[in-house]
Parts: sequence; structure tokens; C-alpha cells
Amino acid sequence: MIQLQSIIMRAEILTIGDEILIGQTVDTNSAWIGAELSKAGFDVQRRVSVHDRHEDIISALSQVAGRSDVVLVTGGLGPTSDDITKPALCEFFNTRLVTNREILEMIEEMVKRRGYPMNDNNRRQADVPESCTILENKMGTAPGMWFEKDGTIFVSMPGVPAEMKYIMSEHVMPALKSRFTTQVIIHRTIMTYGTFEAKLAETLAGFEASLPGNIRLAYLPCYGVIKLRLTATGKDAGSLARQVEEQVGELRKLIPDLIFSENEEPLEKVTGLLLREKNLTLSTAESCTGGRIAGLITSVPGSSDYFKGSVIAYNNSVKTGILGVPEELIREKGAVSEESVRSMAEGVRRLLGTDLAVAISGIAGPGGGTPEKPVGTVWIAVASENRTATEKHTLGRERHVNIERFSLAALNLLRRQIKSL
Amino acid sequence: MIQLQSIIMRAEILTIGDEILIGQTVDTNSAWIGAELSKAGFDVQRRVSVHDRHEDIISALSQVAGRSDVVLVTGGLGPTSDDITKPALCEFFNTRLVTNREILEMIEEMVKRRGYPMNDNNRRQADVPESCTILENKMGTAPGMWFEKDGTIFVSMPGVPAEMKYIMSEHVMPALKSRFTTQVIIHRTIMTYGTFEAKLAETLAGFEASLPGNIRLAYLPCYGVIKLRLTATGKDAGSLARQVEEQVGELRKLIPDLIFSENEEPLEKVTGLLLREKNLTLSTAESCTGGRIAGLITSVPGSSDYFKGSVIAYNNSVKTGILGVPEELIREKGAVSEESVRSMAEGVRRLLGTDLAVAISGIAGPGGGTPEKPVGTVWIAVASENRTATEKHTLGRERHVNIERFSLAALNLLRRQIKSL
Repeated sequence: MIQLQSIIMRAEILTIGDEILIGQTVDTNSAWIGAELSKAGFDVQRRVSVHDRHEDIISALSQVAGRSDVVLVTGGLGPTSDDITKPALCEFFNTRLVTNREILEMIEEMVKRRGYPMNDNNRRQADVPESCTILENKMGTAPGMWFEKDGTIFVSMPGVPAEMKYIMSEHVMPALKSRFTTQVIIHRTIMTYGTFEAKLAETLAGFEASLPGNIRLAYLPCYGVIKLRLTATGKDAGSLARQVEEQVGELRKLIPDLIFSENEEPLEKVTGLLLREKNLTLSTAESCTGGRIAGLITSVPGSSDYFKGSVIAYNNSVKTGILGVPEELIREKGAVSEESVRSMAEGVRRLLGTDLAVAISGIAGPGGGTPEKPVGTVWIAVASENRTATEKHTLGRERHVNIERFSLAALNLLRRQIKSL
Repeated sequence: MIQLQSIIMRAEILTIGDEILIGQTVDTNSAWIGAELSKAGFDVQRRVSVHDRHEDIISALSQVAGRSDVVLVTGGLGPTSDDITKPALCEFFNTRLVTNREILEMIEEMVKRRGYPMNDNNRRQADVPESCTILENKMGTAPGMWFEKDGTIFVSMPGVPAEMKYIMSEHVMPALKSRFTTQVIIHRTIMTYGTFEAKLAETLAGFEASLPGNIRLAYLPCYGVIKLRLTATGKDAGSLARQVEEQVGELRKLIPDLIFSENEEPLEKVTGLLLREKNLTLSTAESCTGGRIAGLITSVPGSSDYFKGSVIAYNNSVKTGILGVPEELIREKGAVSEESVRSMAEGVRRLLGTDLAVAISGIAGPGGGTPEKPVGTVWIAVASENRTATEKHTLGRERHVNIERFSLAALNLLRRQIKSL
């Protein structure tokens, strides 16, 4: 077993904003920052959110000061008066606001380009604490601000995701990487589909017990996909990577049928890569998922190379009129049936002239369930030139969750069919 | 001005899990819990996330103990061994794990229903700290646990959203509400579309300055929508509601054209309500958004009453072959043009036989831009019986953001057209 010295740099993320605490905004910024810091070998040891309240901001800043090397702060820098971070920063760092000429000019130019006159809200964005280093923000009007106090680095950034990401990527991460020599941390995430967590954990109990001391395994279930995350820490990137690769090889032997990606690629990306590799085109016919499958597929840049289009047949008249599902079939078997979904898949494949077609019909809820076909019932079909595969799932009661799980189940059936071609 | 005594109950949310800190999972649980607590009049004063690490959990629990009345903890209760919350709870509350017979039986039954044999991971879920009150979890195998220590209530729940929500709704919120008589807090969110934050803040500067001392205004921009949140605190629900209503009336006078909902309803819901009210049906033809507009529309329960379906014409052959866009039109004007998008809207409206149709064609990026039509260019059309309205937007560079903003711009044009009918 490898014994490691703990030389990890400690980071914290502080988000400021009532909207996060009262649940109006989901905090995606922290997730993104956490991922960037982890990749760079920092230990993100805590994430804290506080109100847009002067005393809460000061108190949070004081608490993190002693325990972390780097604190990344987002939020509270917008042009409107609910944003009070800058005065709090001035108090905490014992400095005052001064107008920055360069920023003012940049804001003037940006506002002009949008075709609006400059106003006081815009002008206030150019006021910055005197003691900080300015980090340019080409995506918006509020700059990033870099402070140091008692051995801790504080960086304050706007909460608008695109602006925060720009400042992080262009300024903060390069500066942090050059300043700190961190321990190497490798996160490797293996994607699986087709079982549930307790069962998978049983299958992998022996594997987990035999992992070296510097590698940990975590299970992350999400809409039917279970991610297996290996976290390895060490000093040498090369040997650590080899060590992780060895464990991935073990997993490959243990659960070959469940793994669909060894590098955290989602199903829509894996499916797209397979289609591209085999030079196949795809169409979809969706009922209950209302475009979510097509939305997942087209979220991948370049998907226009293999995805031709879709017919969302929400109303049965679209299933019969456009996709050519026989009316009597729907009358006798119902729109949520193996026969109907098979006919939908074959219909859209013919109509759009693609190699493969996915079709789906189910009951997402909350209404529409019957004793024989309760909410959560879904039929999926994948048609190719010579055969049409079908599959039935019975999932839960929540509409939003069902739409997501149905769509991933369809992508997984598609993936398996492409592999079998 | 109304002066209020501060009698707000203080709450905190603690989430446990490496996946949140390293950014692999976006913390939607905290947002949901924050919204529930706020609605009930609690002040969610802080949200903290820590590692799946014994000493970090203990340290976080110790810190919140003094400063809050209620602490809601999620995560770390799954069946797999990366979950170490229960032993930490035992140490902090000075108790030990005991097997709970009832939970064991419930787990046995649940596992049987799924058709799998019981394993040790399942069995361990029935072990609970002796000193806690058990909160039944009908959505999964890990129960909720209610502790009290030195005047603070601690509730530990599993991190799986559906399970956490069940325990919160069935057990935690009713118990908290009966225990605490909290101050009344009203959050009212007015939805606007059609301007940007600094400009809106200028328009509303006088309104904001004249707000009574117990009401605050916040701006929350998101993909082109700007939410205006009024937060009011007081003792009497009735008079507070009247006071908020008065301010909403002011906003209605100041920005009538920008407001699309006075109750935080998203564009897809407002549009659906308008369609239902006017008894109109809808279809869509999407290119660059790949099904996102249909996905938004069908995310609303009951949307099958007015939404018939969609043709996702990702490939030009679908635009010409199915929607009937003339080939020479695409050749001469391009697929991203006023003429093409107009033809798409009229084509899908005819094809699916709906009263209204939305069409969209644009360049989401990262590839596909030209000097004349850069990434971020989009054309939108809404066709009705007598006219087709079109609109052009030039937005940003990020694919994911563009797909979202394009879709909302289309829904807003649709909304305005329905209102004008």
C-alpha cells in the first residue's frame, strides 16, 4: 500500500445570494468551480452559501480566512442594488471603492454596442476596491477581484455563469496553478446502466475491498445511470494514471455489460460516437418525452452529422397522419403498446430516410394512468433495416423524473442496438 | 414605515457528499429544501456542503449547533460504503447503531418486489442511531432521522431527491410548522422578458427607493428572463399580502409590456394557459433547438390538450421533404433566414393542422457560423391563420446557453402573438 503525505491545498467556495438560499436558483456555479479546482488537484473542502447581507458576508469571509488557502466567491456583483458584495469586501479588506478608468471605458463601449445609453447602474460597475487586483471580464461588465489576506487568496467574481467561467478560465486557474504545486488527484468516472445501486455494490464488494489505500470508489446514481467514481491521490501523475487504469481494467472484467463509458461521457455522446463510427443516421419519434430524446442527442456539438430529425407525435392524429400508425392499432392496443411504438419507429425511419429510428410512447403522469398501464409505463422501440427491438419499462410517478428516465432508457436501447449491428 | 421585531426561526442546510464538492452533482436538493423552508417562514441563513469524511461531518454539525434552530442534513445514507454519515451522527449525538425491525421488514418487502435477493447492503440500511426518531421513507430504503441537541433540531435524510422530498413533505415540514410559530415571509416573483438588468434597474430605481422598509426587491436574470423578487416580512399574513399586492400593482403600471407572469410561472406555462384559454392548438418546427421548445411546452402537465406535436427538422432534407420548404429558398436565402423560418412555420401548421405554429432556425454553435450569420444568430416565426410574425435575435457563443435562450425567445414571440389574436 502506498502511503502519501498530505500536501493538498485547501479551497472553499462561497456563493452569495438570497436566491440560492430560498431555492429560487440552483447553484450550478459551485459545481463548475468545484470540478475545475478538483481537476487541478485542490481539495474543495467546503462550500458555503450566505444571504446578500452585509454582516453575513463579513462573517463567512472571516470564518474561511483561517482554514483555507484559496476562497472563490461568486455573486453579488451585478448592476442592481440587491448586490452588496463590494462594500462588504471593502470593509473586510480594509479598503475603499475607487473608479477604475479602464473598466469604465470598457463598459461604455459594451453598452454602446448594445445600443442603449449609459446609466448610473452601469457606471457603478466600474467602482472597485482599491487594494485588489482586477481580473478582466470580457463577457460582462463586472470584473473579477483578487485579494490576499493573512496567507489566504480571495477571488470575488460575478454570479452570471458565463462571466464567472471566463474569469476562472482566463485568470484564476492559470494563476492558482502557477502559484501552488498541488498533490496529483485523478478522478475517473465509469458510466453504467442496467442495474440498481445496492445490487451493483454487492457485485463490486470484492473489488472495492481490494482497492489500494490511495484509491476510493463512490456510487452516484442519476435517472437510471449509475456513475462509479474512482478518486486516486498521489505524487506522480504518470504512475497514478497507470494505477487507475489498472482498476478500470478490473471493472471492465467484472461488469462488461453495464459499462457504457469509461470517461464520464453521457449516453447521448456515446450513442453519437457509435453512430459516427458506423456511419449511420438517426431519427426519432417521441410521444411522452416531448422532444427530450432529440434534445439530448442534439445537445452534442456536431450531431447534425448523424441526426436528421424527429417527429414529436404528442397527439394520436400525428401518430396516424404523419407516422402512418394504423388507427385500428391504436384503438385496439392503445398508443402505449409494443405494436404502436414499433409502428412509430418504423414509420419515422421510412419518413426521414434514416438507418435507425428510436420511438417512445408512455405515460409520464401525473394524469393518464390506468390499472393495466399505470403512470410510469413506457414502451420503447429501435428500428433498423432488418429488425425492430422493443422494450417495456415501468418507472415512477413523477412527470419530470419519468421524462428523463424514459429518455435515457431509450438511448441505452439505441446504444445496444447500434453495437449489435 | 413598519418596524418589525425579529422573531424569525433560523434554519441551515447541510449537504454531505464528495460529488457535490468536486462538482459532479449539482445540488438541487438544497434549492428545494430552501424553497420549502422559506415558504414556511424560516430564514435559511446558510447552506454548507462538506466531504463524506467523518471529521468534516462532525465539525460541520458542531458549528451549526449553536447558531440555528433547525438543521436539515442530506446525503451519505445510501446502501454503499462511500456513505459514512450514520457513524458520524452516532458520535455527534453520543449514541449507537441498532437494527430497526420495522425498517428491516419494509426493506425486505421492497427488495422482494423488485425481484432481487436481499443482501448485506440492504440489511445495513435498517441500522439506525438508537436516540433518534425514525421518519418513514416510502420512496426508498433509507429512513429519515430526527435528533434534538441543545435546543437545535437536526434531521438527516437520504440524498436521493425523491426520497428526501417524501420525508420532508410527509414528516419534517408538518412537524416544524406545528412546533414553531414563525414570522410571516412572503416571496412574490414577477417574471419579465424583453430587456436587460441594468436597463430594468434604471426604470425601477424610483419604485425601489419608495418601497416600504419591510419589502426588498431583487433582480434574477436567467436566459433572457429577468425575475423580480419582492420579499416582504411581517406578523400578519393578510395585511402583508395586501401590502405586496399593492407593490405588484405599481410594477404593473411601470412595466406592463415586460411582465408575463405575476406568480413566477415560466413562459411555457403562461403560453399553455393562454392557448387553453383561447382554445387554440399548437405545433412546432425546430431546427437548432433540437426539440427544446417542444420539451419546454410538454414539461407542463396536461399540455396534450393543446400541443399536437412537432417536426424537428435538423437536416435540410426534413425541412424540404416533410415541411415543404422550397429547396431553392434554402439555396438562395439559407436555412437560417426569415423566408425559410416563415416557410417552416406555415408548413408545420398545415401538416399537423394546428391553429398556431412556431418555427425556429439558427446557429447554436460552436461550429456553423459565418461573418454574415455568426454563431448566435437565430430566426423565429409564429404562424397563425391570417399572418406569420418573424423575429431575429443575435445572441452569444455558447451552444447550451443559445439553445435555452433561443427557445425562450420563441416562446415569448408565441405568447405575444396569442395575446394579439
